[in-house]
Amino acid sequence: MTTPVRTALQETTLRSATREVVIGHDRPFCLIGERINPTGRRIFQDQLRAGDLSAIERDVAAQVAGGADVLDVNMGVPLTDEADLLARAITLVQSLTDLPICIDSSVVEALEAGLATYQGRALVNSITAEDDRMAAILPLVKKYDAAVIALPNDADEIPMDADKRLELVGKIVEVATKEYGIALADIVIDPLAMPIGADTSVVQTTLETIRRIRDTYGLNMTCGASNVSFGMPGRHTIGAAYLPMAMTAGLTSAIMDARTPEIVEAVKAADLLLGHDEWGGSWIAAHRAKQATLQESGAT
Amino acid sequence: MTTPVRTALQETTLRSATREVVIGHDRPFCLIGERINPTGRRIFQDQLRAGDLSAIERDVAAQVAGGADVLDVNMGVPLTDEADLLARAITLVQSLTDLPICIDSSVVEALEAGLATYQGRALVNSITAEDDRMAAILPLVKKYDAAVIALPNDADEIPMDADKRLELVGKIVEVATKEYGIALADIVIDPLAMPIGADTSVVQTTLETIRRIRDTYGLNMTCGASNVSFGMPGRHTIGAAYLPMAMTAGLTSAIMDARTPEIVEAVKAADLLLGHDEWGGSWIAAHRAKQATLQESGAT
Repeated sequence: MTTPVRTALQETTLRSATREVVIGHDRPFCLIGERINPTGRRIFQDQLRAGDLSAIERDVAAQVAGGADVLDVNMGVPLTDEADLLARAITLVQSLTDLPICIDSSVVEALEAGLATYQGRALVNSITAEDDRMAAILPLVKKYDAAVIALPNDADEIPMDADKRLELVGKIVEVATKEYGIALADIVIDPLAMPIGADTSVVQTTLETIRRIRDTYGLNMTCGASNVSFGMPGRHTIGAAYLPMAMTAGLTSAIMDARTPEIVEAVKAADLLLGHDEWGGSWIAAHRAKQATLQESGAT
Repeated sequence: MTTPVRTALQETTLRSATREVVIGHDRPFCLIGERINPTGRRIFQDQLRAGDLSAIERDVAAQVAGGADVLDVNMGVPLTDEADLLARAITLVQSLTDLPICIDSSVVEALEAGLATYQGRALVNSITAEDDRMAAILPLVKKYDAAVIALPNDADEIPMDADKRLELVGKIVEVATKEYGIALADIVIDPLAMPIGADTSVVQTTLETIRRIRDTYGLNMTCGASNVSFGMPGRHTIGAAYLPMAMTAGLTSAIMDARTPEIVEAVKAADLLLGHDEWGGSWIAAHRAKQATLQESGAT
């Protein structure tokens, strides 16, 4: 594009035992399926607390069927041994699918247990620009040869302007590369997508942040795609517009529920339009598969 | 945003006898309803040839109901007096709606007849960078105090790279402003949206062209939104991703069929996300209206 890119565009390589997924600016968008997470799911929490992980099977199958490229696994259940639970969940998920995993926890011990168990090259979710988070987690990222999601906020605040976010990205890059020897390619920034319902300028800030991170650092980026529409009606329509817009600015990945075809299809259309689907082959194949399914079910 | 804007962002004012519509970079996207056009519609052509304009009524009602802000009116029927037909169609449309009109013809005499008849401030569709087209049409644009859509192509070719398109935009701006006294605000550029099915790099070129036109000239832009998906399956999904992407780059208007809710809703979501829908008021009101309609029809 026209904006001068001051650095090379990075590629982040993730792996399971048998499969490689590369996140990059010239590649199809990476869908990180987000549903393997008990947050806000009371029954699932009770099952996990009782040692019953069987619901994970259904969630994995649904995310895979929806087109996830990577699976986010979070086992944040209050009053459990999260490290043990996360390690068991990761082993289970790896027995069910060959998709790489994004190991998601706010608990350092759980991240370490997950990384120790995981077969492959994981994505760690997440650090912030806070010194103690970086000091606790970046050595694990290095030790286990993983990649890491980093949020440009610190203990004080979530910065509402792009300048401050860029400043914190600069700090993260400096510390991660120089102090811990992490490659630029293995730092995936979350540019912070806030709810549009709270303030209608937040997406402009996020889009500006995305453009500047790409142009300044060439880093890959991901975000929690559903945050943007939080509290608004028509959430799927908002999500289906937001991701193509963010992809146009330079977002290369999102943590999202792959069970929402409206949003997944919007991402695939944006891949096509950005020239990331050679000859439109994937788009046309997906349409044919959909037509075949409709015909089988007698809907056409 | 971050890109340095070298000139003021322009606002294009259109009017019917009683209603004003302003196209601008900080405003909701302008939907130019495109269906009042007999191209490819055999029955409609036969009716028009026989002097029967009644089908226009239904088309106007459908575009207005779908949310059009402006109506494109084209009466290109072979073997008719297009000037007379277009003038009559414009009079009829103005009796049916107060939306401003985009007067659409490749025939200079028809444009003049349309402009002479039209009550208000029209948008003329269109000129190219060809000297003879500009010499024939720009004096009419000036005489009737209209705005004009300009395509950056010349007699030789439709340029496939952004540099050449920008060069032709520069020529159009130079000629229109200096030789014919047209204001920058009254030049609306069509950045040329080509079918993605022919070449998967064409949208990247269009997005780059849009960004550079906004940053260099601050002009408003419009495009035929359905061209991009021509020949591909899943056209509405492609259109619903394309317009938010193009709006992110700086497109401020599109000529489109307002009867496609999937695409219209994507545009409204992008307006919300770009901060062009204060407090999300329009988005929320539209959702409530839709819910009310569903409830009335017993669908919920």
